[in-house]
Amino acid sequence: MNNSTQNHYMAEALSEAKAAAQRGEIPVGAVIVDGATGEIVARAGNETEASSDPTAHAEMIAIRKACTARNTPRLAACDLYVTLEPCPMCATAISFARLRRVYFGAYDPKGGGVEHGPRIFSQPTCHHQPETYGGIDEQASSSLLRDFFKDKR
Amino acid sequence: MNNSTQNHYMAEALSEAKAAAQRGEIPVGAVIVDGATGEIVARAGNETEASSDPTAHAEMIAIRKACTARNTPRLAACDLYVTLEPCPMCATAISFARLRRVYFGAYDPKGGGVEHGPRIFSQPTCHHQPETYGGIDEQASSSLLRDFFKDKR
Repeated sequence: MNNSTQNHYMAEALSEAKAAAQRGEIPVGAVIVDGATGEIVARAGNETEASSDPTAHAEMIAIRKACTARNTPRLAACDLYVTLEPCPMCATAISFARLRRVYFGAYDPKGGGVEHGPRIFSQPTCHHQPETYGGIDEQASSSLLRDFFKDKR
Repeated sequence: MNNSTQNHYMAEALSEAKAAAQRGEIPVGAVIVDGATGEIVARAGNETEASSDPTAHAEMIAIRKACTARNTPRLAACDLYVTLEPCPMCATAISFARLRRVYFGAYDPKGGGVEHGPRIFSQPTCHHQPETYGGIDEQASSSLLRDFFKDKR
């Protein structure tokens, strides 16, 4: 897995984030990739507004779609690409789903749960720690979020 | 809100947990109650096996159902009753949903995220802390879980 591969999948996640922004959702997008074949198993953008569902983060929807597609609650050979550092809810779901790796774009000091806040994967009670790589194409993800909130003011 | 009211709603959550056990699911159940009217807005048992969905905890399903029923992602005047201490995923979702109070049955030192592990509501980055009350009808919830895992061995 080299940098250009990572950037390719992050671009797919970014495209989901941009589509979310166009729907008036906070622009976060995610894709789940089969680590062996490179196939995109599931893709999603944030849907909290449209669904009136505070759990409808891009990662949660992508995990649920991928588990449905594979008919298993375990995505052990799969990797998640997401444009923003996962929150504690999503980080815990990522651990439950046994995802192999997490690549994220922008760091989230206020709401993140991987490198900030409860640092879910470092908790002694966390039973599965994926490899995590932050800051992948960070500028693109954070400027998308910045522009979205600027327009809202 | 007195003890017998709490026990009444916890009995409803326990009935969801028992129904989950009969479906072969880890027996955890939840109900969400309108704090003003006493109406049960949503009820759910664990569905992780049936849905092949690692996020399908009783609390998550109940929150999603209640938000759909009320057509809002905020359940500010509502209380959650759940038979087991919520995990970090569910605790974060509870905070996002702005639930007023959380009453839980059994404590969960290995997987809990309220009184154990990351103690989500005590994190400086947690923006909404519900009131929490643990150990409500604890014996009934924990013996249900103990019997379930004993039968599985």
